[in-house]
Amino acid sequence: LWQRLGQQTKNGKTLCKGLALCCWWPPDHRPLLCVVVSPAAERLRYILGDEDDAPTPTLFTEMDTLQHEGGELEWRESARWVKFEEKVEEGGERWSKPHVSTLSLHSLFELRTCLQTGSILLDLEGYSLPQIVDEVVERQVEDGLLAPELREKVVFVLLRKHRHQTKKPIHRSLADIGKSSSTSECLSVCVSTYHSQSRSMNDISDAPSTDQLKNKFMKKIPRDAEASNVLVGEVDFLEKPFVAFVRLAQATTLGGLTEVPVPTRFLFVLLGPQGKSKSYNEIGRAIATLMVDDLFSDVAYKARDREDLIAGIDEFLDEVIVLPPGEWDPKIRIEPPKKVPSADMRKSVFSLNELGQMNGTAGGGGGSTRTEGESLDGRFCGGLFLDIKRKLPWLLSDFYDAFHIQSISAVLFIYLGCITNAITFGGLLGDATDNYQGVMESFLGTALAGVVFCCFGGQPLIILINAQPDNGVIDYMELRLWIGLHSCFQCLVLVATDASYIIKYITRFTEEGFSSLISFIFISDAIKKMAGSFKYYPINRGYNPDYVTMYKCDCQAPTQESLSDLPVVSTDGSKLNGTALDWSQLSKKECLKYGGSLVGNSCKYVPDLALMSFILFFGTYSMTITLKKFKFSRYFPTKLRKLISDFSIFMSIMTFVGLDMLMGLQTPKLIVPTEFKPTRSGRGWIVKPFGKNPWWMYLASFVPALLVTILIFMDQQISAVIVNRKENKLKKGCGYHLDLFWVGILMATCSFLGLPWYVAATVISIAHIDSLKMESESSAPGEQPQFLGVREQRLTGILVFVLTGVSIFLAPVLQFIPMPVLYGVFLYMGVASLGGIQFWDRIKLFLMPLKHQPDFTYLRHVPLRKVHLFTLVQIICLAVLWILKSTVAAIVFPVMILGLMVVRKMLDLVFSQHDLAWLDDILPEKDKKKKEDEKKKKDRKKSKGQDDDSNEEVRKMSLCTLIHVERIVYSCYYGHSANTTQ
Amino acid sequence: LWQRLGQQTKNGKTLCKGLALCCWWPPDHRPLLCVVVSPAAERLRYILGDEDDAPTPTLFTEMDTLQHEGGELEWRESARWVKFEEKVEEGGERWSKPHVSTLSLHSLFELRTCLQTGSILLDLEGYSLPQIVDEVVERQVEDGLLAPELREKVVFVLLRKHRHQTKKPIHRSLADIGKSSSTSECLSVCVSTYHSQSRSMNDISDAPSTDQLKNKFMKKIPRDAEASNVLVGEVDFLEKPFVAFVRLAQATTLGGLTEVPVPTRFLFVLLGPQGKSKSYNEIGRAIATLMVDDLFSDVAYKARDREDLIAGIDEFLDEVIVLPPGEWDPKIRIEPPKKVPSADMRKSVFSLNELGQMNGTAGGGGGSTRTEGESLDGRFCGGLFLDIKRKLPWLLSDFYDAFHIQSISAVLFIYLGCITNAITFGGLLGDATDNYQGVMESFLGTALAGVVFCCFGGQPLIILINAQPDNGVIDYMELRLWIGLHSCFQCLVLVATDASYIIKYITRFTEEGFSSLISFIFISDAIKKMAGSFKYYPINRGYNPDYVTMYKCDCQAPTQESLSDLPVVSTDGSKLNGTALDWSQLSKKECLKYGGSLVGNSCKYVPDLALMSFILFFGTYSMTITLKKFKFSRYFPTKLRKLISDFSIFMSIMTFVGLDMLMGLQTPKLIVPTEFKPTRSGRGWIVKPFGKNPWWMYLASFVPALLVTILIFMDQQISAVIVNRKENKLKKGCGYHLDLFWVGILMATCSFLGLPWYVAATVISIAHIDSLKMESESSAPGEQPQFLGVREQRLTGILVFVLTGVSIFLAPVLQFIPMPVLYGVFLYMGVASLGGIQFWDRIKLFLMPLKHQPDFTYLRHVPLRKVHLFTLVQIICLAVLWILKSTVAAIVFPVMILGLMVVRKMLDLVFSQHDLAWLDDILPEKDKKKKEDEKKKKDRKKSKGQDDDSNEEVRKMSLCTLIHVERIVYSCYYGHSANTTQ
Repeated sequence: LWQRLGQQTKNGKTLCKGLALCCWWPPDHRPLLCVVVSPAAERLRYILGDEDDAPTPTLFTEMDTLQHEGGELEWRESARWVKFEEKVEEGGERWSKPHVSTLSLHSLFELRTCLQTGSILLDLEGYSLPQIVDEVVERQVEDGLLAPELREKVVFVLLRKHRHQTKKPIHRSLADIGKSSSTSECLSVCVSTYHSQSRSMNDISDAPSTDQLKNKFMKKIPRDAEASNVLVGEVDFLEKPFVAFVRLAQATTLGGLTEVPVPTRFLFVLLGPQGKSKSYNEIGRAIATLMVDDLFSDVAYKARDREDLIAGIDEFLDEVIVLPPGEWDPKIRIEPPKKVPSADMRKSVFSLNELGQMNGTAGGGGGSTRTEGESLDGRFCGGLFLDIKRKLPWLLSDFYDAFHIQSISAVLFIYLGCITNAITFGGLLGDATDNYQGVMESFLGTALAGVVFCCFGGQPLIILINAQPDNGVIDYMELRLWIGLHSCFQCLVLVATDASYIIKYITRFTEEGFSSLISFIFISDAIKKMAGSFKYYPINRGYNPDYVTMYKCDCQAPTQESLSDLPVVSTDGSKLNGTALDWSQLSKKECLKYGGSLVGNSCKYVPDLALMSFILFFGTYSMTITLKKFKFSRYFPTKLRKLISDFSIFMSIMTFVGLDMLMGLQTPKLIVPTEFKPTRSGRGWIVKPFGKNPWWMYLASFVPALLVTILIFMDQQISAVIVNRKENKLKKGCGYHLDLFWVGILMATCSFLGLPWYVAATVISIAHIDSLKMESESSAPGEQPQFLGVREQRLTGILVFVLTGVSIFLAPVLQFIPMPVLYGVFLYMGVASLGGIQFWDRIKLFLMPLKHQPDFTYLRHVPLRKVHLFTLVQIICLAVLWILKSTVAAIVFPVMILGLMVVRKMLDLVFSQHDLAWLDDILPEKDKKKKEDEKKKKDRKKSKGQDDDSNEEVRKMSLCTLIHVERIVYSCYYGHSANTTQ
Repeated sequence: LWQRLGQQTKNGKTLCKGLALCCWWPPDHRPLLCVVVSPAAERLRYILGDEDDAPTPTLFTEMDTLQHEGGELEWRESARWVKFEEKVEEGGERWSKPHVSTLSLHSLFELRTCLQTGSILLDLEGYSLPQIVDEVVERQVEDGLLAPELREKVVFVLLRKHRHQTKKPIHRSLADIGKSSSTSECLSVCVSTYHSQSRSMNDISDAPSTDQLKNKFMKKIPRDAEASNVLVGEVDFLEKPFVAFVRLAQATTLGGLTEVPVPTRFLFVLLGPQGKSKSYNEIGRAIATLMVDDLFSDVAYKARDREDLIAGIDEFLDEVIVLPPGEWDPKIRIEPPKKVPSADMRKSVFSLNELGQMNGTAGGGGGSTRTEGESLDGRFCGGLFLDIKRKLPWLLSDFYDAFHIQSISAVLFIYLGCITNAITFGGLLGDATDNYQGVMESFLGTALAGVVFCCFGGQPLIILINAQPDNGVIDYMELRLWIGLHSCFQCLVLVATDASYIIKYITRFTEEGFSSLISFIFISDAIKKMAGSFKYYPINRGYNPDYVTMYKCDCQAPTQESLSDLPVVSTDGSKLNGTALDWSQLSKKECLKYGGSLVGNSCKYVPDLALMSFILFFGTYSMTITLKKFKFSRYFPTKLRKLISDFSIFMSIMTFVGLDMLMGLQTPKLIVPTEFKPTRSGRGWIVKPFGKNPWWMYLASFVPALLVTILIFMDQQISAVIVNRKENKLKKGCGYHLDLFWVGILMATCSFLGLPWYVAATVISIAHIDSLKMESESSAPGEQPQFLGVREQRLTGILVFVLTGVSIFLAPVLQFIPMPVLYGVFLYMGVASLGGIQFWDRIKLFLMPLKHQPDFTYLRHVPLRKVHLFTLVQIICLAVLWILKSTVAAIVFPVMILGLMVVRKMLDLVFSQHDLAWLDDILPEKDKKKKEDEKKKKDRKKSKGQDDDSNEEVRKMSLCTLIHVERIVYSCYYGHSANTTQ
C-alpha cells in the first residue's frame, strides 16, 4: 500500500521512500502530513464541502474520570470545555481559569490509535444511558474486543454515579466551615466534599436534576448547544483498553451524566488496565479538545465511518501549533488569546466556493467609515438628500437604543462638561462683549443649538459648544447678526455644492494633528485656570504663625479732599457723608467701593483657598483616572467594576464636592444664572437687523463672515471625521452635509437671538463617544469581550442639552460644585482624548529603547527612523499651529488647519506610498495607480494564502480607491499645494 | 520491517497493526511516539548516557535566506536564536522581540524527511567556506543526489555574500533620514538598506570583519558559544531539493557567514526548486529551533550517523507541546516564559544514574532558611559559637560585596528613615522623660547601637531602632540603668541557653501577623502625624476673602491685677513694668509669655500650612510609589529605569523639598541638634548606678526587666526571622544567638550612657533588604531576569549609622527637609512592607470574585473557604493585638505575641496538616509523622515523575523535619498550649 500511494502521486514528488514515515510533497507547494493526510483532506473535502448544510451545534464537553472513593467507584468531573479548558483543582475544590489546552503529541497519536481500534457507533438510537451502555458493550463483545465474561463488570462501572464540580455561593460555603471544623482530617474532607459537590444519584432518570437546572454555568453555554461526554478511567479487570466512540442519532439528556441540562450527542469511553491513569487522562483531554474544535466537531457530526474521524484527527494534526519543549514549560496555563483564527477560514479550505466567500466576508462588516456613501452625486444638494435618506431609517432606533444605564453616566458626564464650558466661556464672553452676551446667553444658546442638532443633525454623537468669541467694534449685536447671516448663507452654499467632500483629504495626519491640538488646548486651559487660582488667592509665603498678631488689614477712610471728589458715595443714596461711616466695619469690597484704602500686610493674601483648589483639582483628575482603570482590576465582580468605571467621573466629582463641603472653605463655586433674562438689562431677546449701522456694513460683513465660515466648516468637519472614524465602528453612517446644514441654520437663529455661535466640539464629542462604548458580554469562559461599537442614538445628546437648559432651576444643587473640581474634569477630558491616538503612541516611541517598543504593526513594516521623522513633522506642525493660535494671527488659524492638509500633501514627496499607507492614509490622487497596484498585490496574496496582518489596512486602502477625485469648493487652498508638487 | 517491529516488542503491546501509523505501547506505561521512537530512545540513551562528557557549548543559530535583490543574489539574515527566536522585520528593518518559536508539525516532519534523504557530513575537516561547500557538493554528486552539471551553479549560489541585520545607534540612523529623503522610492530603499545593513563582502577571509566585531549583540552570547548556520532558499535550476547537514570537526570562523565573530560548528543548507520559499523557511526555522534545543544540540554534537539525528528529532517530537488550531492564533508571538524546564531534567531520562543526581540538585541551592544550622548543640553557648563560626568566613566579603551603586541609594533611604525615626521618637521620649533622654540621646544611641550591631551582629541587614519608651516614676535614669542591666543579663542567659531555638515555632502565621502589625503601626503613625498638622495648624474654615478687614488678632495687655500676680514678668529681668511694653508689637509667643491675651478671630488659625503639609506628605508618598514602579515601564533604557527605581525615595524627597523651598512656607522642618551635649543640661554622659534609689530597687527591677526582655527578645527574633526568610535567598546564613548577644550588650551600654534601648526594626529592616535586592542581568534575549538574592554586607548599615552620628554636622542641610515629606516616606515604608506578604494577598482574595483570583498554588490545593477562614483568624488576632497595643495593657503586648504562637498551635485542631502545609509551615511536633508521610509521598512522586509544582513546598517541609523537638526556655508559655491540645 505504501508503494501504491507513492505511485498515485504522479504530479507530486515523494521525497523519500524510506521505511517509516514518508512525506508527500505535492506540487501545490503545501506539503501535507505524511502517510495519510492526502486522502484525509480528500475525505474531509467530501463531507464538509457541501455548504448548504445547517451549521452544527456548539459542543459542550465534559470529562469525567473514574475515582475510587472509599472503596466505592464513581465518576467525577475533572475538566470541561466550552471553547477553552477548565480543570477541576482537586485540592482547591474549584475550577481553574479557562486556558488553552496544551496537549502532547503523544496523546493525540494514542487517541488516533484508539479510534482506529475501538468501537465506533455512529447514529446510535439512544434514549437512556443503560441502553446505550448495553449496546456499546454488546458491540465490543461482538467484535471480539471484549471477553463476554467482562460484560457485566464494564456495564457496572459505566453506570456508576457522576459527581460534578458545582460552584456554590460564598455564604453557603462559609457556613460549611463550621461543620467541617472537626479534628479528624478524613472527616473534614468527607464533610466538605459532601457539601461542595453535588451527587447525581439518579443516572437513570431522564429529567434533569435540580442541581443541573440550578447550575449557573448554563448561562455560558449557547442555547442550541449539545454535550459530548468523555469518560476515562482505569479498572483492574481489563487487560487491554476498552474504547468506544458513540454518536447518538438524536441528542438526548442522559440524566446526571452532564453537569448542565444539555442533551448529550457524543460519548467517548476509555477504560483501561491499571497503572496508566495519567496517559488515559491525556487521551481524554485530547478527544475533548478535538470535540470543541470547530473543524473536528463538524467532522464528528458528519462522519460516515471510522475513517472520516481519523481523517479529522489528521487534519487537526496538520494545523496544530507546536512549541519546542526547551522554550516552554508545559505546566504554564496559557491564557486564551484575544482573537483566534475564525473557523470559517479553516473550513473554507474544504468548500468549493471558498475564495468568493472569503472576499465577501472580508469586505463587509467593517463598519462605517468616513468615506462611506461619499461618492459624489453631482446634483444640487445631492449630498444633503443622501444624508437624510441614510439617516431616516435609523430615526426610531436613535431613541430606543439609548435605554441602558451607561447612557445615564454619559449624560451626567457630558452635561457637567457642557455647563462648565458654558460657564467659563460665558464669563469670558461677557467680559469681551460688555455683557451683551453673557453666561445666560451661553447657557441658552448651548441648550438650543444642542437640542436642535441632536434631534436633526447627521451625527448626533457630536456635541456642539460655543465657537471662539470675536471682539466687535461698532454696534456689536447688529453687526454680529449680519456676519451670522452671511455665514449661514455661505454654509448653505457649501452644503448645496457638496463641499464636504473635502473630508477625503482629511487623513489621519490632519485628524490627529487637529484633535491633539484641541486636547492640548483643553489641558493647557485647565492648568491655566488652576494656576489662576494661585493668582486670585495669593498665598502669604512669608507667614509666620508666631507673628499672627502682626497680620491685619484695615480699611482706612480716605482723606477729606479725595472723598469729596468721589461720585460713588454721592450716587449711593443712603450714605451721604463719608465720615458717618464706620470704616473699620466695612468689608473689603465695601471699603474699596466707598473710596477707602486697605492698609495692612494681609490685605492682598487669601489663605488656604489656592491650595485647597489645587487639592480638589488634582484629586478629581487622579481619582477619575484611577477609577477609569478600575475596570481592569481583579476586585469585585465584572459588572460592578464596569459600573464604577462608567461612573468614575461622577463618583470623583461627588467625592471632592463632599470633601469641599466638609472643609467648608469658600472655594469658587459653579454659579449658574437663576433668572431667565438677557445678561445685559435693556436688550430684548431678538436682535433687529437694521437701524444701527451704516448700510455698507451689511455687505462688508461678508468678508469676516468668510473667515468665520472657514473656521466653522473646518472645525465641524474635522470633529465629525474624528467621531466617524473607523475605529469607533459606527453603524448608522455619517451625515456631513446634514451636520453643516444645521450648523448654518443655527448660526442664523443664534444671531437673531443674540446668542453665541455653536460648532462641533472635538474633545467633548470624543468623551461622549468614549462614554457610550459597548463591549460584548463574553460568552465562552475565557473568551475576551470584543469592542462592539458605540450606542449611537440621539437621546443622550438631547438630554444633556435639555438639562443644560433647565440648569437655571438646578442652581441650588449646582452651587455646591467647586470650579476646581470641574477644571479637573476638563484636564481628564483633555488627557483621555489623547489616548488611543496613533500620533501620541508614536511620540512615546521616542522615549522607548528599541527592544521595549510595543509590537505595533507599522513598526514591522516601516523603518523606525521614518516613523520618527513622520512624528517629528507632526510635532513641528502642531507647534506652529500652537504658536499661531496663541499669538498674533489667531484669525488665520482656520486657514492654517487647511495648511495641515497641504503639509500632508508635501509628505508624499518625502515618504514612500508604502510607508504612508502604514502611518497615514493614501491621498485620493494616487488612488488609481494604487488601485491597480493593490489589485495585483491582492491577487498575489490570494494565491499565497492569508499570511499578513495587513488585511485591515488593505481594506482601508481599497475603500480609499472608491473615492473619485472631484472639484471642491476649497480647491483654491488645495490647488496651490497641488501645483508645487507637480 | 513493520512486522518485525511488531514482533520485537514482546513485552509491550502493539495496539494496532494498521497500515500507516502504528503506535507502540510499552509496559513501562510511557507510550512512545509511533514507528521509530522506541529505537530512538535507545539510541539516545546510548549517545547521551555517558555523563562524564564535558558539557557541549551553547549554540547561536543564524538563519539566512536567499534573496534576489536587483538581479543579484545574496544571503540575507532573516532570524536568529540564542535561546528564543528573533526575526528580522523586513519592512521595519529591525529585530522583533524575542519570542518562543511556534512551529508547524508539517515543517518538523519535512525536516525529518530532509535529514533522511539529504547529505549528512559529520566531523568534516573544514577551514573555509569555499572548501566546505566544495566538499558538500562533491558528496551530493557522488551520492547521485545532484546532477554533476549543476555543481557549479550550486557552489556559486552558496558562496554569495551575506548581509546581516545590525543594530545602529539612533543618531546615525537619524542622520540617514536626510540622505534617504529623496523622491524616488527605489532610491530611498537602496540608500537606506546600504546604511542600515552591513555587507560582508569578503566571505572568504577568515578574520572576522569590523562589522562583526563591532556588533554589540555579542554581549548576549555566552563566551564559549559556537554558531550553527542555516541557509535556505529557492533557485530556478534545481528540480529537487538540495539538503546538507554539516558538522565541522573544529568550530571555525567562516568569514562573514555569521553576524557575530562566533566560530561555526554546524551548517544546514536547503536549496530547492522555486515556488515553495515559505515551506523552506519553515523547515529552516524548525532546524534552527532544534539546534538551540538543549537536548537536540547535545545529540547533534554527539551523533554518530544520520540515524542518531533522526532519533534526536523523534525525541524532540516526543516532548513537543501542541496547541489546538482553534484555540490559538499561530500569528501571535508568544513571550518567553518566566521559567523553562531545565535541560538537565530532560537529559536525565537518558543518563543512568538519574534519580540520585536529581535529588542532589533538587535539595541543594535553596538558600539559607531560618532553620539552617539550627540543630541544637546542647553545649553552653553552643548556638553563639556556631553563629560566630558561621559568620566569620564571610567577614571580608561583608565589606567588598557592598560596592555597587545600589548601596548608595539604600544608605540614603535607610538613613532618612532612621533619622526621621530618631527625631520623632526623640521628641516623644523627651516629653516622656522630662528631657532626660531627648533627640540628642536618640541620635547618639541610634548611631552607637547601629554601628556596633552592623559591625558584629549576626545578621547585619537588620536595622536597630529605639524600643518603646516606658515612663519611669522614681529616679528615672538610675532605675532604667538597673532594668537595662537585668535585661542584659537575661538576654545573655537566653543566648547561653540557646533560647533562640524558639524561632522554630515562629511560622509564617506569626511572622506575617507580627510584621503586618508593625506595618499598620507605621502607616497609622504616619497618618496620625499628618492629621496632627491639621490640628497644629488649624484652618479657618469660615474665612471669607471679602471680610479680610475683619480678621485680626491683637495682643491685649493684661489687666493691672492679673499683671501683678504674674511671676513671669517679674522674673524676667529687663522689663519690670507691664505697661511699659508695646503690647501690639509683641509676637504671639511673647504676648502669652508676658501674660497678655490674644483677642481676635484669626488668633487660633494658621493659614496654608496644613494643606501644604498634606500636599507634601501625599505627594512624596505617591511619587515614591510611582517611581518605584517605573522599573516595569517601557520608557528609557533598563539601566536608567533601574536607577530611577532605586533612587525613587531620594528623588521624591528632593522634589518635594524643592517644592517646599519654592513655596517658601514655614512648614515644620527636620531640626537636628547641632551641639554635642545631653538634652537635659545638668546630666553627664554616664549614669551612676548607685545612690539615688533605695537598695531593694536594684533587685526589684528584675520584674520589669523580664517584660522588657520578652519584648526585646520577641521583637528581635521575629524581625530576624522575617529578614532571614527563605524568599530573600540569603546566602551567608543567620545568627540569632549572636544578634541577641549584641542586643543585650548594647542594652547595658546604652543604659550606662543614658541612651534609649535598641532592637531590630521590622519595617526598616524590610526596607533595607528591599533596597538591596539583586536581579540577574538577563543573558539570552527574552530570558527573564531572576531574583538572585540580597547584597548581604555590613557596609550599608554601618554607613547609615555613621551618617546618623554625624547628622549633627549635617544640620544646615537637613533643616530644609519638611517633616511631612518624611512622614510620606514612613507611609511608603509601611505600605511597601505589606507587599509580598501572603497574608495580605489572602485578604485581597476576599474582594475578588472566584474567576479573577490569581493562580496562587495554595488555591489549587486548599478549598477557598479554608483559606478564608485562615485569613479571618489572622485578621482577628491582629485586631486583638492592635486593641491591646493601643489601649489598656500595652505592657502585656510582648506576651501577646507569644499568644500568636499559641493561636497557631490551636489551628492544628481546626485545619488539616495538608492545608496548613500550604498556608503556613508545619510545627515541629508533627514532624516525625510528617517526615514519614513525606517520604512515602516522595517515593510515589519519584515513580510518577515530576508532575507537581509543589517541589518548593516539599523541600520546605522536609527541611522542617530536620529540626528536633527540644526543650526551650519559654516552654512555660508554649507548654500551656501543648497541654490543651493533648
